Amino acid sequence: MKLIRDYFDKNNLLCEESLFHTANGYLGVRGNFEEGYPSDMLSIRGCYINGFYDTVELKYPEALHGFPNSAQRMINLPDVQTIRLLVGEEEFSLFEGELLSYQRCLDMSRGVSVRSIEWRSPKGAELNIKITRMASFAVRELFCIDYRITSVNYDGEVRFTSTVDGDVRNFSDPSDPRVASESVWNITPASVQADEDIGVMKCRTAASGLTMAVCTAHELTRPAQIQSRAEGKKITTTIQTRLQGGESVALHKYCVLCDSRRQEYPVQAALNILAQVRAQGLDALYLRQEQYLNQFWKQSRVEIDGDAIVQQALDFNLYGLLQSAGCDSVSNIAAKGLSGEGYEGHYFWDTEIYMFPFFLMTQPEMAKRLLDFRYGILDSARVHARIMGHRRGALYPWRTITGSECSSYFPSGSAQYHINGDVAHSFLQYYYATDDLGYMAEKGAEVLFEAARLWLDAGHYNSRGMFCIDAVTGPDEYTCIVNNNYFTNRSAQQNLCGAAEIYHALQAANSLQAAEKIGLSAEEAAEFERAAAAMYLPYDEQLDINPQDDSFMNKAVWDFANTPPEDYPLLLHYHPLALYRHQVCKQADTVLAHCLYDEGIAESTIRNSLHYYEKITTHDSSLSTCIFGIVSARLGEAAKAYQYFLNTACTDLENAHGNTKDGIHTANMGGSYLAIVAGFAGLRCRADGMHFSFALPDEWEGYRFRLRYRKSLLQVEVKRCGSAIKLLQGPPVRLFVEEREYLLEDSLSFREVSV
Amino acid sequence: MKLIRDYFDKNNLLCEESLFHTANGYLGVRGNFEEGYPSDMLSIRGCYINGFYDTVELKYPEALHGFPNSAQRMINLPDVQTIRLLVGEEEFSLFEGELLSYQRCLDMSRGVSVRSIEWRSPKGAELNIKITRMASFAVRELFCIDYRITSVNYDGEVRFTSTVDGDVRNFSDPSDPRVASESVWNITPASVQADEDIGVMKCRTAASGLTMAVCTAHELTRPAQIQSRAEGKKITTTIQTRLQGGESVALHKYCVLCDSRRQEYPVQAALNILAQVRAQGLDALYLRQEQYLNQFWKQSRVEIDGDAIVQQALDFNLYGLLQSAGCDSVSNIAAKGLSGEGYEGHYFWDTEIYMFPFFLMTQPEMAKRLLDFRYGILDSARVHARIMGHRRGALYPWRTITGSECSSYFPSGSAQYHINGDVAHSFLQYYYATDDLGYMAEKGAEVLFEAARLWLDAGHYNSRGMFCIDAVTGPDEYTCIVNNNYFTNRSAQQNLCGAAEIYHALQAANSLQAAEKIGLSAEEAAEFERAAAAMYLPYDEQLDINPQDDSFMNKAVWDFANTPPEDYPLLLHYHPLALYRHQVCKQADTVLAHCLYDEGIAESTIRNSLHYYEKITTHDSSLSTCIFGIVSARLGEAAKAYQYFLNTACTDLENAHGNTKDGIHTANMGGSYLAIVAGFAGLRCRADGMHFSFALPDEWEGYRFRLRYRKSLLQVEVKRCGSAIKLLQGPPVRLFVEEREYLLEDSLSFREVSV
Repeated sequence: MKLIRDYFDKNNLLCEESLFHTANGYLGVRGNFEEGYPSDMLSIRGCYINGFYDTVELKYPEALHGFPNSAQRMINLPDVQTIRLLVGEEEFSLFEGELLSYQRCLDMSRGVSVRSIEWRSPKGAELNIKITRMASFAVRELFCIDYRITSVNYDGEVRFTSTVDGDVRNFSDPSDPRVASESVWNITPASVQADEDIGVMKCRTAASGLTMAVCTAHELTRPAQIQSRAEGKKITTTIQTRLQGGESVALHKYCVLCDSRRQEYPVQAALNILAQVRAQGLDALYLRQEQYLNQFWKQSRVEIDGDAIVQQALDFNLYGLLQSAGCDSVSNIAAKGLSGEGYEGHYFWDTEIYMFPFFLMTQPEMAKRLLDFRYGILDSARVHARIMGHRRGALYPWRTITGSECSSYFPSGSAQYHINGDVAHSFLQYYYATDDLGYMAEKGAEVLFEAARLWLDAGHYNSRGMFCIDAVTGPDEYTCIVNNNYFTNRSAQQNLCGAAEIYHALQAANSLQAAEKIGLSAEEAAEFERAAAAMYLPYDEQLDINPQDDSFMNKAVWDFANTPPEDYPLLLHYHPLALYRHQVCKQADTVLAHCLYDEGIAESTIRNSLHYYEKITTHDSSLSTCIFGIVSARLGEAAKAYQYFLNTACTDLENAHGNTKDGIHTANMGGSYLAIVAGFAGLRCRADGMHFSFALPDEWEGYRFRLRYRKSLLQVEVKRCGSAIKLLQGPPVRLFVEEREYLLEDSLSFREVSV
Repeated sequence: MKLIRDYFDKNNLLCEESLFHTANGYLGVRGNFEEGYPSDMLSIRGCYINGFYDTVELKYPEALHGFPNSAQRMINLPDVQTIRLLVGEEEFSLFEGELLSYQRCLDMSRGVSVRSIEWRSPKGAELNIKITRMASFAVRELFCIDYRITSVNYDGEVRFTSTVDGDVRNFSDPSDPRVASESVWNITPASVQADEDIGVMKCRTAASGLTMAVCTAHELTRPAQIQSRAEGKKITTTIQTRLQGGESVALHKYCVLCDSRRQEYPVQAALNILAQVRAQGLDALYLRQEQYLNQFWKQSRVEIDGDAIVQQALDFNLYGLLQSAGCDSVSNIAAKGLSGEGYEGHYFWDTEIYMFPFFLMTQPEMAKRLLDFRYGILDSARVHARIMGHRRGALYPWRTITGSECSSYFPSGSAQYHINGDVAHSFLQYYYATDDLGYMAEKGAEVLFEAARLWLDAGHYNSRGMFCIDAVTGPDEYTCIVNNNYFTNRSAQQNLCGAAEIYHALQAANSLQAAEKIGLSAEEAAEFERAAAAMYLPYDEQLDINPQDDSFMNKAVWDFANTPPEDYPLLLHYHPLALYRHQVCKQADTVLAHCLYDEGIAESTIRNSLHYYEKITTHDSSLSTCIFGIVSARLGEAAKAYQYFLNTACTDLENAHGNTKDGIHTANMGGSYLAIVAGFAGLRCRADGMHFSFALPDEWEGYRFRLRYRKSLLQVEVKRCGSAIKLLQGPPVRLFVEEREYLLEDSLSFREVSV
C-alpha cells in the first residue's frame, strides 16, 4: 500500500506537496523539502492544526445587511520542517549536484512518507539520504522527521541545521476565489526559547486570541553536540558530527504542537507530550503507527481484484480521509483536509454528504464525533438564522470553522440552505445505521428539530397548497438564488419527515427532553409532517425529469460547442450572470437528490434526469463525477459508472482539477468510496435496514469491503461468479438485496451480479 | 422664488448643506458655513467638479470572474469655502455669542444662496453679516463668496482669514452601502503658490492621473492690505481693516476651478478665467446670473395656482436639476448632482428615465449633450458587454463616471440590463420630440443598434418561440437575478423596435453610415423586429396584471403587518435573501413599464397592476412615488396621484428618506416634474406626436408649463374651467388630446378636465 514517485519532476513538486503531506486529523504538514528550494521556485510551505484559526476582517466595496464582517481562516503555523544539511562546505540540495536516484513514497501501511535519495555533490561527495516523516495517530500532537544519511565516499564533517521558524504567512492568490486573496501575518511568536536539544515557541494569533505551542527535540543516533538558540521569531538547532565512507547517522526531530482550543496550557502540554514520546523512542512510535493502520485498513479498506491502479488510488483516497478527519468534536473535515490552504480550512456540507458515510460505515464512533461537531455549533446556527431574517430555527453556516458564517459571496454561500438538510441527513443516517436513539435524545433531535423549523420559516404554501422554498441556491453553483430547487426541497422534505419521525420515536421512548428544551410541541411536529407531505418538487411531465428548479428548463442551454477547453472551469472565465443565465451545471444537483433520496421516485425519472443533466454538467466541481457514477450504477449503466468512478478515484493523483497544489479534494475522496459502496454495491441505509444492489464493472474481477451496522460487522464481496454478504460479528441483520428482504445470520450468496 | 429658513436648527444643518448647496452643472459647493463648526459637530464639507474623479481599487473577499477591480469616485476637492472672521479678538461663530436674527435663503431667481445674520459677540460687539454665494452659470468655472459685514456698534479692527485647503478627503460611512465605505486621500496638492491677493493650487489625484487647479482672488470693497501665503497643503489669505459703527465692508472671494478633463492646462485656464471675471466685477456677474435664470424659468417653470408650498418645492426641484446637469458631454447628472457624495457621483439610469425628459421638453440642446455623453462611452459599453460574456453588442454600465462599470454588487448593479433599454428610450424620445434624424445618423443609431444587439445575445427563444431574457434584475432591487423581468423585456422590446425603426428611417434617407460602421445588415435589423415581436411579457390572466417576472407571483407576500416602522428602508435591516424571497418592491418596476410603455396594454391591466403593486411597494427608493403618481393620474385616480406627487415633490425639503445630508435626490426631482407633465397633463411623446390627457388635482386652481416640440414652443394650461394649449412660436403641431388628433395652429381649448 504505497504511493511511489521515482522520478524528480520539478514541475510537479507543488502538487506533490499535497499528495505527500503527512497528517493525522489533528495536525498536518505539507510535503515540502526539508532543505528548501531555489528562491525563484514557488512552494507552499505549510503546517496546520485542524480548526486552529485566525479571524480576518471581511470588507466589501458594497456591504449589504447581514453580510458577515469577519471570517475564520485555518492558518499556516510556524515552519517545523526545515532541516538543512551541510556536507563539508557544500549544502545538500536536489537542485545542485547530481541526483543518482530518487524516490518518494507514501507508505500507507506504515503511516509514513519517505524520501530516498542518492546524491553526488558538485565536488563529488556521494551520500544516500532517507528522510521519513510521520504524523502520529497514536500521539496526535506529534510530527516527526527521521533524517538518515549514509556516506558512500565522503569522509568529513556534516552539519544539520534544523529550525522552527515563526515568520510565516498563509499562501494567497488574489486571482483565485478558492484561496485566500490577501497575505497577512495571522500568527506571531509570543515567546521563543531554546536550550540544547529543546526548542519552545509559543505563538499567538493576530485577531482570534488563540495560542499554540511548538516544542521540538533533536536526537542524533550517535553522540554529538546539539546546540539550540532562539533569535527573533526563530529557533535554530545545529548538530555537528563526522562521517566516514560507509557510515550512517540519523537525526530525529520530534515536533509537538498543542493549541489553546484543546489545552489550557499549550506549552506545558506540549512539553509533557514531548517527554513522553522521547521516552518511547521512535521505533516504538513507528510500531504503534503501523498497528493503528493495520486496524484501519482491516476495517476500512475496499479491495479490488484485477485493477492495481484503481486499488492504489482508492487506498490513497481513504488514507487521505483518515489523515483529514478531526475526531475531537472541536474540529471536522476541511475541504482540503490538512494538506493545504484551499478554501481556508473551512468545513462545508462536503463532510456530511461525501465523507461522513465512509466513517459511519467503517468507524461509527468517529462518525459520531463529526455529528458532535455540528451539535456543538447549533447555537451559532441559531444566530445565523436570525441574521438571515428567520424568526425561528437554526441555519447552518455554509462554511465555517467554529460555527459563524465565513462565506462572503452569499449567492453561492449562505444561500445554500440545503446545508441544513445535509446535516439532518447525516444525523438520520447515523440513527438508521446505529439505532442509537440515546444519541438522538441527547443531541440529534435538537439539531433535526431546529433545522426543520428553519424550513417552516423559510418556505410557504403557494396558492395550490404546495410548500415552496424560494430564493435559495442548490448544490450547483452555476445557478444561484432560485425558487424550488429540487435538491433543496427534497432534502428539506427528508429533514422535516426525519424530525417528525424522531419526535415520535422519542415520544414513544419517553425521552422528549430536546423538544421540551426548545419548546417544540406535538403540533409543530405535525406541522413538519404537513409541510413535508405538501413539499413542491418540480417535475416535467413531458421529459419525465425533475427540473433543477422552477425556472431552469426555460433557460437556454450553454453553448458548449463554442466553449474552448481552456475556458474550463467556467467559473474562472465567465461572469456569474453568464452562467446563471444558462442551463449549465457545475456539479450534480438533481442527480445528487436522486442519489440520496430516491425513494418513491420512478426509475424512468431518475434515468431521464441523469441523461438530461449529464449533457449539461461540466463537473467543474470535484464533487460531481462520483454522484453521476453512483446513479449510473444504480441504473445498471455500469460501463459509464466505471468511467465516472475512474475520474473520481484519480482526481488528485492526476491533478485533474489543476489545483491539487492547494490541497487534496477530500469530498471527492469520500466520493470514490461511495462510488463503490453506494454505487456498484448499491448500499442505501434506510429506516428499514440496509439495501444492496450489486454491480461489477467489466474491468474488475471482484471487490470486497467490510461494514459496521448496528452491533454487527459484515463483509460484502462481489465477484463475477456471484456475490456474498457475510456476518463476521454480532447479531443477525435484516437487509435487502435487489429490494428482496433477507435475514443475514451467517452468510448469504447471490448468484448473478447485474452488470 | 426663494427657499427660506429663518430659524437656526443645529440638528438640521447637515441636511441644509445639501439643500443650500450652490452648483452650476460643472462645479458644486455644499452649503457649509464659511466660519466652520465646533469640533464635535459633523459636517460634510464638500466641493466637487462634475465628472472629476479618482480611481479606487475594489477588493472583494471572494472575487468572481468579471467583477470590476476598480471604480471611479467623484472626489472632494480642496476646500475653498473657508473664511474666518475676527472681530477684535473675538472670532465670529454661530455657536457662540448671541444670534439676534438668522436667515438662510436660496434665491432661485438670482441664482445665489444668502445667509443673513445679526450677531452679538460674547463681548457685545454687534454685527450684521450677509454672505452671498454663487456658482456662476455664465462662467461655469467660477464660484464666489461675497462676505459683507456691517458694524452696528463695533469700532475696531476686523480680520478675514480666507483659506484654500488641499488637505481633504471624501466623507465615508462603512455602515451605509449608499456612500463610500473608506476614507482615503484621493487628491493632493502638487503645487501651492500665493502672492498678495492671488492663490494658485494645483492638485493631482492619487490614482486616476487627473489634475485640477483652484485659483482664488480676494477683493475688499475698500483699500486694505491683502496678504496671501502658501504653506503645506494650504493657502491662507488675510485681509485686515478697521470698522466703525454703521460702516459696511465686503470681501469678494473669487474661486475658479479648472480640471484636466476639460482643459489641457488647468492652471493657465483658471488664471485666464480669473482675470476675466475680475475684469467684469461681481455686479456684472450677478446680472448675468439673473438673466440666465430669467430665461431658464421662463422656459422651464411649471406654475401652479393655489398651492404655494408645492410651487416652492417644485421650483426647488427644477432648480436642483439645473444645478446638477453637466452640459459638456464629458459629464452627466449624478444621483446627488453636485450637492453631496452619495452614490459617489456616479451616473445611473436616473438620468435617462427621470431627468432627461425635463431637459428634452424645455432645453432640447441640453438634452442632446446628455445623449452625447452616452455616445461618448459607447466603446466602454462594448468592453463591458464582453466582460459580461456577450459576443456582440454593448451593455451600458449600471453606474459610472467615464464609462467603466463601477458597481461592485452585481445582483443589483450590472445585472440591471434594463439600463440599455433606458438609454435607448432617451435617444428615441429625443428623436420623436425633435425629429433630428441627422443626430440619429451621426450618433443615435449606433447606440440604438449596439444596445439592441446585446438583447439578441442575452436573450433566447424558448420552446414556444417566445423571446426570453434570463438572469437580470429589474429596477426593483428587492428582487434580483430573475427571468423575464417584465420591465426589462418591455424595454428591450422598445429598444429592438426603435432600432429597427431608425434603421428603416436612415435607409430611406440613405444615411446608413452607422450600420456600415458596425457591420449591421438588413437581416440583423429584421432580427431585431423578430425578437421584439416574439418578446415574452409575463401576464397573469386570473389577476389581469403583468407579473414582475416569471417567479414573482409564486413568492410569499412580505409580512408587512409584522414589520415595525423602524425597519424601513428594508435594505438596511434585512439580508438581501430575505427580501428576494418575498413579494416586496423597493420601487416601481412593472408600474414603471406601464408608465413608459403603455401602448397596447389594456387599461384594466395597468389599473390592476397598479393596485397590486402598490400594496407591496415600500417606496424605499426615491424613484418610486413619482411613477405611481403618474400612472394613478393616467387612470383618473387623481386624489391618489396627488398624494404620490406630494411625497415626491417634498422629498428633499422634508428629508423624507433621511439621507438628504448625502445630497439631493436628483431623479426624484425630475420625477416631480414628470408627475405633473406626464402625470396630470398626461404627456407622452410618441412617434406620431405628443399625446395629452389632462387632470387637475382638487387642491389646485390650475397649472401651466411650456414645452419645446420640434421647431415649436407650446404652452399648456390646465384650469378648473378647462384647459388650453397655445402655440407660442413655430409651425403648427399635430397632437392628441384624450387620443383625439388635433392640429395646433394657434390655440386649442378643451372644456372639461378629467379629475
